[in-house]
Amino acid sequence: MAKEITPRSEDYSKWYNDIVVKADLAEQSAVRGCMVIKPYGYAIWEKMQHTLDAMFKETGVQNAYFPLFIPKSFFSREAEHVAGFAKECAVVTHHRLMNSPDGKGVVVDPDARLEEELIVRPTSETIIWSVYKNWIKSWRDLPVLCNQWCNVVRWEMRTRPFLRTSEFLWQEGHTAHATAEEAEARTRQMVQVYAKFARETMSLPVIVGHKSPNERFAGALDTLTIEAMMQDGKALQAGTSHFLGQNFGKSFDVQFADKDGSLQYAWATSWGVSTRLMGALIMAHSDDDGLILPPSLAPIQVVMVPIYKTDDERNAVLAKFEEIGKALTAKGISIKIDDRDTLRPGFKFAEWEVKGVPVRLAMGARDLANDSMEVFRRDTLEKETMPIEKVADHIPALLEDIQKNIYRKALDFREAHVEKCDSWEEFQEKIQTGKFLLCHWDGTVETEQAIKDATKATIRCIPVDSYVCEEKGKDIYSGKPSDRRVVFAIAY
Amino acid sequence: MAKEITPRSEDYSKWYNDIVVKADLAEQSAVRGCMVIKPYGYAIWEKMQHTLDAMFKETGVQNAYFPLFIPKSFFSREAEHVAGFAKECAVVTHHRLMNSPDGKGVVVDPDARLEEELIVRPTSETIIWSVYKNWIKSWRDLPVLCNQWCNVVRWEMRTRPFLRTSEFLWQEGHTAHATAEEAEARTRQMVQVYAKFARETMSLPVIVGHKSPNERFAGALDTLTIEAMMQDGKALQAGTSHFLGQNFGKSFDVQFADKDGSLQYAWATSWGVSTRLMGALIMAHSDDDGLILPPSLAPIQVVMVPIYKTDDERNAVLAKFEEIGKALTAKGISIKIDDRDTLRPGFKFAEWEVKGVPVRLAMGARDLANDSMEVFRRDTLEKETMPIEKVADHIPALLEDIQKNIYRKALDFREAHVEKCDSWEEFQEKIQTGKFLLCHWDGTVETEQAIKDATKATIRCIPVDSYVCEEKGKDIYSGKPSDRRVVFAIAY
Repeated sequence: MAKEITPRSEDYSKWYNDIVVKADLAEQSAVRGCMVIKPYGYAIWEKMQHTLDAMFKETGVQNAYFPLFIPKSFFSREAEHVAGFAKECAVVTHHRLMNSPDGKGVVVDPDARLEEELIVRPTSETIIWSVYKNWIKSWRDLPVLCNQWCNVVRWEMRTRPFLRTSEFLWQEGHTAHATAEEAEARTRQMVQVYAKFARETMSLPVIVGHKSPNERFAGALDTLTIEAMMQDGKALQAGTSHFLGQNFGKSFDVQFADKDGSLQYAWATSWGVSTRLMGALIMAHSDDDGLILPPSLAPIQVVMVPIYKTDDERNAVLAKFEEIGKALTAKGISIKIDDRDTLRPGFKFAEWEVKGVPVRLAMGARDLANDSMEVFRRDTLEKETMPIEKVADHIPALLEDIQKNIYRKALDFREAHVEKCDSWEEFQEKIQTGKFLLCHWDGTVETEQAIKDATKATIRCIPVDSYVCEEKGKDIYSGKPSDRRVVFAIAY
Repeated sequence: MAKEITPRSEDYSKWYNDIVVKADLAEQSAVRGCMVIKPYGYAIWEKMQHTLDAMFKETGVQNAYFPLFIPKSFFSREAEHVAGFAKECAVVTHHRLMNSPDGKGVVVDPDARLEEELIVRPTSETIIWSVYKNWIKSWRDLPVLCNQWCNVVRWEMRTRPFLRTSEFLWQEGHTAHATAEEAEARTRQMVQVYAKFARETMSLPVIVGHKSPNERFAGALDTLTIEAMMQDGKALQAGTSHFLGQNFGKSFDVQFADKDGSLQYAWATSWGVSTRLMGALIMAHSDDDGLILPPSLAPIQVVMVPIYKTDDERNAVLAKFEEIGKALTAKGISIKIDDRDTLRPGFKFAEWEVKGVPVRLAMGARDLANDSMEVFRRDTLEKETMPIEKVADHIPALLEDIQKNIYRKALDFREAHVEKCDSWEEFQEKIQTGKFLLCHWDGTVETEQAIKDATKATIRCIPVDSYVCEEKGKDIYSGKPSDRRVVFAIAY
């Protein structure tokens, strides 16, 4: 049956949008740039949240909640450092709607203008550090390790579901420390939490590294990132962790009495991942048949489709599925028995393939009589037949194998598309074919900008634990001396 | 030691605010009417969320996420039904900030005006039903059972932490059904979920009942509520479940092909509880020493405070606490060993009392030698001494007893402050002393309004499963015939 998904080879961008829609993950809303996350998509996001939240808490982080709105004046402190400051964000100016005087519809009440405009948070450093000022008086109050799960808004002109939306969901961690060393250690710790999560839970190989000064978060002294390769060879920044120095401590006057009695400004970090991870998950693993989910993020890990003609056959097959379902549930595996009576098995097969359910069990009355069941794995599209009684015991190892195989496949793909490049001519050509190029860079903003202007490629990161990059060489563009290679790619 | 909490008898309202601040639950932010939920307060809210979320999912509800913003025009459809419509809400009119032309600070970019203003959701019926229109085509698509955990904004002039804030956190469930009967059954089912949660998890006795037409949610054909009594005898509406009929189905043209081929409008419910539950929790149970938490919502269920003079004593006592802590953790009990070296035990005792930790264990070197430990329960302030080895086994039953005792205490309080009243003279006097009065009502809006104007009391609900209210009588105010008593009270 036709799954109506555009093949990757035909139109990668359309393929992505098709999967988002056909797998029931998200859809556009009546509000420009804001998406609806549908139940199946949200269930995947919830699994990401639960895993990450537990990982954060293991490192001592606590959740809290800070206001949605930020007073406009807070942005002035940022603007002071930025020539030509412009911030795309949602601005609240009024606090009341009323009937239109002409009796048609509603209008904004002109008398309900706010004294100071409020900005819907695009990120919360300013409002949070205005609060930390109350919390931090002494070295004994440090560190402060807070995270919040919330929505943020950045007005975007061109949006794509999950990858770039005006409103998105994320977590933002904000920590305060007594020393630079401790804050820097926290910055490194959190990017490693993200890397571990990406690799183990999302089956997503990522490169951990520093951003070049050009690509740093505004106000950060250092930004660490995890960068993933999508199936078109483009890079996707999947999470960042920032060392913010004392910038916010100073802007919001957060001083503490140190052990020696002296007054010091607190040191800051912030770190976040967002629903953008959903985009990374889709684009890294899926195929022309639909979504492919690593079992650890699949809302349904095993789906069972009965095949029958008569009611008796139906009852017999469903009874056996119930039995297997109970055994799997007891092992902590999430299952669904698709007992819908109005759809053909072939239609169900296609639907669960599109939705990326890792394992499908199918069985008819004859199979039941022959003690055999069909076990289908979504990642490789392989089918095998096995004795019914063995299925429940086989599944946990199968899911584990799928989890690892999806990672291996993505890693193999990346390794096949990463190469060293030492020629500017080659660079210009190869970078357009979907590759990560490991190149020498002279460390200047000017060179980075010139390369970007010429090719759209940016420095994705200066890797800290992938590839051997430390070696003397010459900058690929300027020819000036360089101490190490960095990762160049075209990015989402 | 002084806990600096105003006694209830002196100023109930100040007592409440003191507990919010001293127990580290929340604080005011730089944004008028918006609070910061601090880690300790948020941990309680998270426990509420997790319990409720599992209860929702057991009934087949799935989580999803809908946009923060609602186009202004969606409110016109509501306004058509409301004379003198006025909605206090946050209105987004622009999408960019820029440097001020005079070089001082930032201003709203006048060129970035939105074509249509966006409203920060005060509740999401309109945006969600605009989406349901895409989801619902056939009876096979029904029911749709969605919930979202999110923030909402209702501009409030007078705010109080948790009880009434301009931004608050909540869940809103929105379901669509093929028949009125099914939607009404869902409305009843969800108010019973709330009642069970309040009674069992929050130890909060609640009365389940219908709202009078005057107090219904705008657009609802029926509103069910759970009403709780606070320690000042006032009522607090803690959760509501609405049967919305076909109003939103019609406003947003959500029609489906029924089994017989005819086109029908979908039937709607919505139901929600918010961080207001935190206010109910605080005001129902706490005392002049601080917060009292039912164990099932306590972030820390057992705190252990060592008493020592020398390092050797400290090490010995802490070693024993570690052992007990491990045993308790294995039983699923959350513990904290307060090993802070800079604070006296008395200070720690007071701090954990203010924070409402249900059980405190205290032990010194001499106790260790004598094989005895002090076990303190926060709800009754009772101490008992018991052999050390027995403590870990004793705690689960103790926590269960505390959970039940807090409920019993609140229920006893309510029963002592509920009475039947059949005299308007008595009513006017008694209602001001903090009571729920069970009175006959003639069923008219006029009488309800007259009683409210005279006394500020409102009909909190027409109970469905508490008190025997079905009996003939005469309206307490109008003297007209009545078929049943209803609950009158002054409310938060």
